[in-house]
Amino acid sequence: MYAIAIHGGAGALPWQHLSLELQRRYDSALAVALDRGYAVLADGGSSLDAVTTAVRILEDDPLFNAGRGAALTREGTAELDAAIMDGNTLRAAGVAAVRHVQNPIELARRVMENSRHVLLVGAGAEEFALAEGFELVPNAYFRVPERQAELDLLRGGHSVSELMPVPSGTVGAVARDAHGNLAAATSTGGMADKHPGRVGDSPIIGAGTYARNGACAVSATGHGEFFMRLVAAHHICASVQYRGLSLQEAVHETIHEHLAALGGRGGIIAVDADGRMILDFNTEGMFRAARDSGGRREISL
Amino acid sequence: MYAIAIHGGAGALPWQHLSLELQRRYDSALAVALDRGYAVLADGGSSLDAVTTAVRILEDDPLFNAGRGAALTREGTAELDAAIMDGNTLRAAGVAAVRHVQNPIELARRVMENSRHVLLVGAGAEEFALAEGFELVPNAYFRVPERQAELDLLRGGHSVSELMPVPSGTVGAVARDAHGNLAAATSTGGMADKHPGRVGDSPIIGAGTYARNGACAVSATGHGEFFMRLVAAHHICASVQYRGLSLQEAVHETIHEHLAALGGRGGIIAVDADGRMILDFNTEGMFRAARDSGGRREISL
Repeated sequence: MYAIAIHGGAGALPWQHLSLELQRRYDSALAVALDRGYAVLADGGSSLDAVTTAVRILEDDPLFNAGRGAALTREGTAELDAAIMDGNTLRAAGVAAVRHVQNPIELARRVMENSRHVLLVGAGAEEFALAEGFELVPNAYFRVPERQAELDLLRGGHSVSELMPVPSGTVGAVARDAHGNLAAATSTGGMADKHPGRVGDSPIIGAGTYARNGACAVSATGHGEFFMRLVAAHHICASVQYRGLSLQEAVHETIHEHLAALGGRGGIIAVDADGRMILDFNTEGMFRAARDSGGRREISL
Repeated sequence: MYAIAIHGGAGALPWQHLSLELQRRYDSALAVALDRGYAVLADGGSSLDAVTTAVRILEDDPLFNAGRGAALTREGTAELDAAIMDGNTLRAAGVAAVRHVQNPIELARRVMENSRHVLLVGAGAEEFALAEGFELVPNAYFRVPERQAELDLLRGGHSVSELMPVPSGTVGAVARDAHGNLAAATSTGGMADKHPGRVGDSPIIGAGTYARNGACAVSATGHGEFFMRLVAAHHICASVQYRGLSLQEAVHETIHEHLAALGGRGGIIAVDADGRMILDFNTEGMFRAARDSGGRREISL
């Protein structure tokens, strides 16, 4: 059994503002990322390559809060976070607060493969990117009018959900390949109107991103600060490994009990050692999709 | 029972280079931090205040790799990381890659108390510090000749242990107060010769710093990348809470099995819900001290 699940952010979904046309665009974008990631697995590729592929596609799509189309800081700039983890070797890396790297997930993977470090932030991360041959892009590349409007609304004291479908959106993917290896990847522009230098859960190994063969792989989306305090992704895998909970039970408890108790909102996608996938959230909606070699294929908004 | 344990870094300890005079200075510095932290607890203060007090004292002492006396990046600058966590409320915060904040642990605590975020990095973290009334200091404040010599040695291809006692030193404290609340705090200059922008385990909640009432409080020191991949601090507390391991067993397994299996070296201090303290490491030595209301008081290099 090989399997991949992806998310494109969880949050308030004001359906009255999400036109049928926009719904179709999200559905289509999720389908492309899902099927391209799945194709990697079907070709015998690694879960690591599958999640990288899916996340890179979602980063490139301005519909999602990652890469192009990222949410903006209170100063109007895009600051991007991403992480990746290989459940087989427990190798992992993240980058945070980068402003000029087109695909942060590619940089996170490069940090994992070519550096001795697990987390690089800010200008230092971009120095590494340049040394590795990445071409930097202007910050304006990431900024789209919808995100500027979102920021203006927030500054005006309005709720984001009045305009934007996914305020705390983030993209991510988890996969199990035919060899039984698990992997997770997450990428985000973070919280709209965030303080410059704010880092959320996505690039933090154990908080928003985690993978361990024999346990599970997890990618989170939502109010990152709560996932960080709960060390949510690691907690879910530890619950599967040590408490005998099913993945469904572990994810449900984290979202509907622990996260809710702190007042946090968000969603989780996860896959266990057998390829079973769980996609759960306590927000109005979560852009999500899943496909496996047993014939399951679903896309939901 | 109230209790506090502190560490001042784990690493190779070339005793032939650590003069009796220097040993006395380390012993005395650890004693001051230990007893000042303990006094907070004895006065009925919170574990949060006790660990903040102890870590701030160690930050101010140039003998330790945190605050003044921090290890230097490959560019010769000091970049500081710190975190704190309140086991009672699961509130937590960290700062990373700051260059001009005299006491990073104070800034981490302020982020926890006065911001909506859990991790702030780089210039954004310093922007927050200024807005909160912190006075910034020049980076030169942190740099001491011993650390420049350490960097020069590393650049010359020498092993750090030929000169410096604690290459991967970091400072930290864990405590249980009379109310039964646990807290943890960690502060560091990180790895000598590190890439600018590199963030280690210290400021990452769940990796180098974690506290949860009913489970334990943990502060780590050593090769941070391995603690990050293991989500070590959270793993230890999850093992106590969910696997029925004693704190001693959980810390031992993490250091001598999991960390060793990845090739990592370092140390852990931890305290459990009953105030039992464990100080363990797989390096040659660890600067450490512990004191509790049952009469235990020990300082070891």
